[in-house]
Amino acid sequence: MVSRTEATFFPPIPEAQRWLQGVTFPADRPLINLSQAAPADPPPPAMRAAMAQMMEEASSHSYGPVLGLPGLRAALAVEWSGHYGGTVDPAQVAITAGCNQAFAAVIAATCNEGDEVILPVPWYFNHKMWLDMSGVRAVPLPCGPDLLPDPLAARALITPRTRAIAMVTPNNPCGVEYPAEVVEGFFDLCQDAGIRLIVDETYRDFDSRSGAPHGLLTRDNWDDTLIQLYSFSKVYRLTGHRVGAIIGAAPLLHQIEKFQDTVAICAPSLGQRAAQWGLEHLSQWRSEQRDEILDRRAAIQEHFGPLEAKGWTLLGCGAYFAYVEHPFAEGSAQLAPRLVRDAGVLILPATMFTPEGDTSGDRQFRVAFANSDRAGIAEFARRLAQVEGPLAASQGAE
Amino acid sequence: MVSRTEATFFPPIPEAQRWLQGVTFPADRPLINLSQAAPADPPPPAMRAAMAQMMEEASSHSYGPVLGLPGLRAALAVEWSGHYGGTVDPAQVAITAGCNQAFAAVIAATCNEGDEVILPVPWYFNHKMWLDMSGVRAVPLPCGPDLLPDPLAARALITPRTRAIAMVTPNNPCGVEYPAEVVEGFFDLCQDAGIRLIVDETYRDFDSRSGAPHGLLTRDNWDDTLIQLYSFSKVYRLTGHRVGAIIGAAPLLHQIEKFQDTVAICAPSLGQRAAQWGLEHLSQWRSEQRDEILDRRAAIQEHFGPLEAKGWTLLGCGAYFAYVEHPFAEGSAQLAPRLVRDAGVLILPATMFTPEGDTSGDRQFRVAFANSDRAGIAEFARRLAQVEGPLAASQGAE
Repeated sequence: MVSRTEATFFPPIPEAQRWLQGVTFPADRPLINLSQAAPADPPPPAMRAAMAQMMEEASSHSYGPVLGLPGLRAALAVEWSGHYGGTVDPAQVAITAGCNQAFAAVIAATCNEGDEVILPVPWYFNHKMWLDMSGVRAVPLPCGPDLLPDPLAARALITPRTRAIAMVTPNNPCGVEYPAEVVEGFFDLCQDAGIRLIVDETYRDFDSRSGAPHGLLTRDNWDDTLIQLYSFSKVYRLTGHRVGAIIGAAPLLHQIEKFQDTVAICAPSLGQRAAQWGLEHLSQWRSEQRDEILDRRAAIQEHFGPLEAKGWTLLGCGAYFAYVEHPFAEGSAQLAPRLVRDAGVLILPATMFTPEGDTSGDRQFRVAFANSDRAGIAEFARRLAQVEGPLAASQGAE
Repeated sequence: MVSRTEATFFPPIPEAQRWLQGVTFPADRPLINLSQAAPADPPPPAMRAAMAQMMEEASSHSYGPVLGLPGLRAALAVEWSGHYGGTVDPAQVAITAGCNQAFAAVIAATCNEGDEVILPVPWYFNHKMWLDMSGVRAVPLPCGPDLLPDPLAARALITPRTRAIAMVTPNNPCGVEYPAEVVEGFFDLCQDAGIRLIVDETYRDFDSRSGAPHGLLTRDNWDDTLIQLYSFSKVYRLTGHRVGAIIGAAPLLHQIEKFQDTVAICAPSLGQRAAQWGLEHLSQWRSEQRDEILDRRAAIQEHFGPLEAKGWTLLGCGAYFAYVEHPFAEGSAQLAPRLVRDAGVLILPATMFTPEGDTSGDRQFRVAFANSDRAGIAEFARRLAQVEGPLAASQGAE
């Protein structure tokens, strides 16, 4: 019998990084790496200075409470209440060592062997991997051409073993911002079915809509159904410090305390303190970061217009990601390492975000454009335009 | 059906901390908290200064490779090879966000639903909790009066579902250092049975024996059988930075990459860099730390002599822990909150380290003495000597 890890696939990011081995990039044409959603720069100088000062405080180095530092839980509760127009208590906030861990903890607290969780497809690979490793069946919910999932289609997939529907908005990998009525439609469905709605809002700081992206926190007893996940990694550029959060019912978080104690003991104390400092001092800076990312999104949209003549199509674009279709005959998994060699570009094939046998993955890519500035995005588009090769049948017919 | 987290008990440390609620301690008689194995002080000044400087380097804030920074893996491989007299390659080292996570990752890579892992009893509660949460049966292997497990007794517990035997040496909670022949006897047993031997050596830096505590790394193909776990938290006082390690076969670590990617992405980068700095700069300091902890151990032994007249017995003592028997009629789980109120002392009842129904737990406590200095240990012993109450039948008969 296989072990829990043998039951799933290898992580895509390290796999993709192995495509770089043995490839040399000229100094005047360096690799453009748009494979991972990771800010390229460190936190702003004021935050780095604050963190350096924290080094002299013992609490930066010692264990904190399993569910997070009370100050950070309280600060996020205030910020969350304000943004979503609802009421979130600090007891409804738990701090985790990153948002992947938040998802893992929530699944451990809501599922057991043989249970099912519905995931819109394309999905976030680490969600699928954790469900595999948990003995939980990931039930694919194919999205429409608009890359949005449909609550009615989801309803037909619910069985007595279904424990939750988990979605990501703004979406990873597709970049689409789920409209409020879509998210709320899923909430109603889940409430009705007595299952949980898990909404991973890692990229919420870069949503192009001002104000709350949905009104779920104004519903009565929202926390009987809704569980939100968040990451401090992106907007504060704290990826290496591993700090994320779960917003949900206090009794659920009490269960999650078991998982966190056993797998993490606590999220790193320094990262937690930095995240709290960010919440308290960087609201203006956050808004500038959002403007910058939205500008990069505009750059992608501008550059993909001309690329359409070359057969490339922009399917979705928002937050950190563009989801694009390529014109070539080969599948995206074959094309991706060729793009490294021929174009000096690293992007992830959609086969990493789709179930085996889903042919849409062969035609598509995820572009984590937020890692690059406007100039880099222009150069990325230029390089894509120069790629040649036999076209797919659908392209050749044009 | 219960969820994975509902299948296990609540973590003992937060439970124990709740006993403090509503209890006030006079300023001249503060709480003596010997519940958790956590260094009371921050890292040494030179390390804190180095960490503050690291704040200006981008790599301190960004994601690192899933299995750890190459420099840290290489440095630990060198240190490990030297200490154990064998050959450890950097590819046989993986870095985790703490040693609890190391155990979780190893179980995920070696077990599946319904499998079994043998644990000497008393056990480390987080090991038992993770097995529960993984759908893996923890098979108790009772230790003898010397608190040591017996390979022959373990042999009788092996079934076709057994995947591993997991032990901790120097032991948590019992403080005993497993003799080389015990550990090697378990290795032979595991090799013979085709299962893994997991040895958690979190407390190895405080072993009273100089030199290698066992010769397993000199065996041919040791990594087919042996998996060692380590923590940088204790000797470098980096608990809040969450850095641990797994030493084992490279193909096993490749499987573990899936778990780490999904649950942690990577161990915190700053903590990893600090751990590497420690390996490279603090060998003299580590040896002083060991001397200090060994002196505290001697203090416990000195003070428990007189306590024997009061009916207390020292069963085991080493590394961070003493394992002691109390003289009172009530069970240790009832006595523990009373010790907080009456004596201003917080220690963990052995019921937290023993299976339900194991009556030895009622009579015993774990004392994490390393958190205290000599003066604190003297005061701790004084307070224990003053505790009164109805004695257990066995004590009353004396």
